[in-house]
Amino acid sequence: MFQLDPTLAADSHAVAEDEDLIVRMIDDARFPWVLLVPKWTGARELHDLPSALFEKTMRVTRSLGNAMKAEFRADKINTAAIGNMVPQLHVHIVARRQDDAAWPAPVWGFESMVRMNDEDAEARITLIREGLRLG
Amino acid sequence: MFQLDPTLAADSHAVAEDEDLIVRMIDDARFPWVLLVPKWTGARELHDLPSALFEKTMRVTRSLGNAMKAEFRADKINTAAIGNMVPQLHVHIVARRQDDAAWPAPVWGFESMVRMNDEDAEARITLIREGLRLG
Repeated sequence: MFQLDPTLAADSHAVAEDEDLIVRMIDDARFPWVLLVPKWTGARELHDLPSALFEKTMRVTRSLGNAMKAEFRADKINTAAIGNMVPQLHVHIVARRQDDAAWPAPVWGFESMVRMNDEDAEARITLIREGLRLG
Repeated sequence: MFQLDPTLAADSHAVAEDEDLIVRMIDDARFPWVLLVPKWTGARELHDLPSALFEKTMRVTRSLGNAMKAEFRADKINTAAIGNMVPQLHVHIVARRQDDAAWPAPVWGFESMVRMNDEDAEARITLIREGLRLG
């Protein structure tokens, strides 16, 4: 039974899930920011995934980036698998704008999270769900 | 005719190239750091690539990450498409160690590049080439 890392869980909201992937939204008002977590116990690197799950993870990363760029009127999508702090494999997809708090720096490690209120979080989750095709 | 962005070119060495991808090594002694540049004029985002080229880019990203982890005895591979500064689409693959200069922070924007001497650059390029399967 796959278990989402507790640090990832604490920093994010549930968006969607299927048999292969968990989609979470980082609880940070500064940036529309999604995590994709492939449900493969022990995976730390993209190359730890079996090919079919790797391909699905990348396909969803791509379609979600495409959707988030439009929905959040982003200037740029930032995509990354880093994992230096939290070893469980997770892919970041962040909608960036030239007027956001960190631009042009990356968001990782940029100052501190600004937690969202429930209403703003729900509105953002709804937009992300609309752009999501897990298939 | 596809043209590599001049900033990317100036910061890196040629490693390999085929009809679809350019592989470069960032000229930075601190980190084994590779760029993959899909040869698709005007692409800024992963979703700007046609599907076959996207899939090949991701396949090479994965196999190169796998090889670099072993060859550089890395603790973690960091993979990212950011592009906030240089718009031409490029994927970073960085071999990270817990004793490297930036750990656990990401390398992007971390202090200044430390240029390599020719001998060290050649040795590193050789290792990267050995791990590369462009097919």
